[in-house]
Amino acid sequence: MSNDKTVGVALLGAGIVGGGVVKILRDQREMLFRRTGLTFDVRHVVVRDVKKYDSSLPLTTDVSKAIDDPKVSIVVELMGGTTTAADAIERALKAGKIVVTANKALLAIRGPELFALARKHNTAICFEASCCGGIPIINALQRGLVANRINALMGIVNGTCNFILTRMTRNGWAYDQALKEAQKLGFAEADPTLDVSGRDAAQKLAILASLAFDVRIAESDVHVEGIDSLDASDITFAKSLGYTIKLLAIAERGEGEKLILRVHPSLVHEDDLLADVNDSFNAVSVYGHAVGHAVFYGRGAGQMPTASAVVSDIVSAAMGIEVDRFKHLRALPDSTAPVQTQPMDELKSRFYLRVMVLDEPGVIAQVSAALGKHGISLSSIHQQESESRSSDVVPLVITTHAAKEGSVRNAIREIDGLKVVRPASKCLRIIDSPVE
Amino acid sequence: MSNDKTVGVALLGAGIVGGGVVKILRDQREMLFRRTGLTFDVRHVVVRDVKKYDSSLPLTTDVSKAIDDPKVSIVVELMGGTTTAADAIERALKAGKIVVTANKALLAIRGPELFALARKHNTAICFEASCCGGIPIINALQRGLVANRINALMGIVNGTCNFILTRMTRNGWAYDQALKEAQKLGFAEADPTLDVSGRDAAQKLAILASLAFDVRIAESDVHVEGIDSLDASDITFAKSLGYTIKLLAIAERGEGEKLILRVHPSLVHEDDLLADVNDSFNAVSVYGHAVGHAVFYGRGAGQMPTASAVVSDIVSAAMGIEVDRFKHLRALPDSTAPVQTQPMDELKSRFYLRVMVLDEPGVIAQVSAALGKHGISLSSIHQQESESRSSDVVPLVITTHAAKEGSVRNAIREIDGLKVVRPASKCLRIIDSPVE
Repeated sequence: MSNDKTVGVALLGAGIVGGGVVKILRDQREMLFRRTGLTFDVRHVVVRDVKKYDSSLPLTTDVSKAIDDPKVSIVVELMGGTTTAADAIERALKAGKIVVTANKALLAIRGPELFALARKHNTAICFEASCCGGIPIINALQRGLVANRINALMGIVNGTCNFILTRMTRNGWAYDQALKEAQKLGFAEADPTLDVSGRDAAQKLAILASLAFDVRIAESDVHVEGIDSLDASDITFAKSLGYTIKLLAIAERGEGEKLILRVHPSLVHEDDLLADVNDSFNAVSVYGHAVGHAVFYGRGAGQMPTASAVVSDIVSAAMGIEVDRFKHLRALPDSTAPVQTQPMDELKSRFYLRVMVLDEPGVIAQVSAALGKHGISLSSIHQQESESRSSDVVPLVITTHAAKEGSVRNAIREIDGLKVVRPASKCLRIIDSPVE
Repeated sequence: MSNDKTVGVALLGAGIVGGGVVKILRDQREMLFRRTGLTFDVRHVVVRDVKKYDSSLPLTTDVSKAIDDPKVSIVVELMGGTTTAADAIERALKAGKIVVTANKALLAIRGPELFALARKHNTAICFEASCCGGIPIINALQRGLVANRINALMGIVNGTCNFILTRMTRNGWAYDQALKEAQKLGFAEADPTLDVSGRDAAQKLAILASLAFDVRIAESDVHVEGIDSLDASDITFAKSLGYTIKLLAIAERGEGEKLILRVHPSLVHEDDLLADVNDSFNAVSVYGHAVGHAVFYGRGAGQMPTASAVVSDIVSAAMGIEVDRFKHLRALPDSTAPVQTQPMDELKSRFYLRVMVLDEPGVIAQVSAALGKHGISLSSIHQQESESRSSDVVPLVITTHAAKEGSVRNAIREIDGLKVVRPASKCLRIIDSPVE
């Protein structure tokens, strides 16, 4: 047809995801042409050491040459990191090339500046692959749900944590054992800190929530608790109450124009779809004023799912539509105002508490009294049997009705000061899905 | 900003969905402008009888005037039906206007022709709202998953049927009772035939599968069985085996380039996410070669969810990107070859059978022998207790290993001819999710 077109692509980085992108562009060449009339010509693959890669690729170590090639219109940044990658993206944008990137960390730090640069040079940055791998959630927020005032967005956005929690839940494993299994199977890094601390999830939430709520959000705006201090017993107790513990990233409206942004282990009711998202899968629940509840589920990481997202951006960019989209879309961090967050102390939530108490008369009365004093109403209370005969402390598991987090923290401080209590009491938040 | 723009819209039809579209464009005017720099000017709302509608709207009965208004660039067809609507869409396309429509029935019948007309006049047809209401599944297939060779697509795409099945499953109700409740609550029409027969689901499958598999599919290419002959006892027996019965629309690869296209009540394993999709919600599972398993969940019908999809198309069209997309996207029914389908007899599936047998010695042996003769291997067999003391027939519930449907049909014919069997035996398909 008349609009058949060959599109020059430069790939910066040929690691796991880069390899997947090359594979799709090569193996699905015919399918992509059939669907779009586009042929993709990977003209340069920039690597540090050409000896380490498949010599059939157009390898080079020269970033500038690759970007400046006049036949290259799309630059795909998959190097990672925030220094060389940022320089390369800047160079590409200044040359009017469309940039496709999966570099969440870079967008978190220098997003506003890079988006502004893209706008100035009448080009675009596409970043579908930066969050939740193969799930087209960024496109869903920017296009499919654009008519919605979003009330809440909550998701399982870190596959490593979800894999670990699934193993802990299903197999009754301790955190350390589940982490080791995840590392063995390649679902966790040797140093898993970024994932298990919740930081990776917070970076993704910053990106997703900024699109959903039209504000500029930095990672530091997000309250973060990881899964590394989670106790297997809490997973068991939660299960007996009808809940599954998941690491959720949550953005929702607070008072006025404020947002509450948080990542933490959360008790999700077993009837909630998010409770059924297992292993390394991700899912994002979105609550929009018109669409109601929508969920997007899929693989949040891995070579081919992430490559699927990268190539979808490449195709879209090659069709010539990304620049127009970018020009119009103002819900990007260079054009939006900084978020106003509501402090966690003001969060209204239901809570799960585990208080380790002496197995003595009157203990429940003392703990309940402390909660009552802070205006916290109990929803359920279970004194569990002692885990071993030799122990004189037993877990007292409590769920509360909705209460302010600040009050709960104060109550716990008081409870942990009781003579019959062995600190520190554990406190987790119970998630109630927004009423549509 | 310099790219602020006012976009003229003509709305054909002001029923339920049309009302929702007006509401979003009016109430979310500020949000849409903030997100996109676009202001939407609904210049005409075409209705049959202006006296019946809100007089603050720019009502008219003159379709041509509305379409031909030079300030109108987007024509939103929400009249439904396949005659006046088709004429209006043709007129709009010939005038170079972008058409947004939710008219699945029209696309099913005249899609290829209308898509070709849009291409000829260098404009576009947007139809996100034609399938699954607020779920942006069409955009996901055309953009987010464009890099994927799709292996299978299976979904709950009819909210009426899902509502009825949910009530039957949860409350143990008979079909008639559940249908009445659905009608009372507005989830089913007074004449529910289009929904409960599976035809509506087949029309949606035709659209979704044509995009996923790059072929032209008509409703008549889809094998259809509805839920209207479903027996409450089969839901109960399925449940005891670990399955939930859902009306699934399924498109998957068969032999060679052939597709198997079908809509029927299906036994879905309780671990499958689709088993947890309840009430009037829809969900579509997609299995792509790169992305693996992805699921899109949300409200498949209703005023505001559908309006959410319509407005997302309007916004996208107004950004000027839909025409470019349309020009490039060839996976549309005017450009693709007709599907080659594989006959249902050749379907390989596991099956659930309920055979009503006399409660006599030797019965199980006879039934098993008939299955064995046709090469069908049993996975489980349960003889249930008689439902009433006076009855001398009892249900024999069988699940099979994978077998050809043709063989199973032959075996059932033979079984139904046995003296110890009271025909007709019930046969349902068990769905195994594709292995990634």
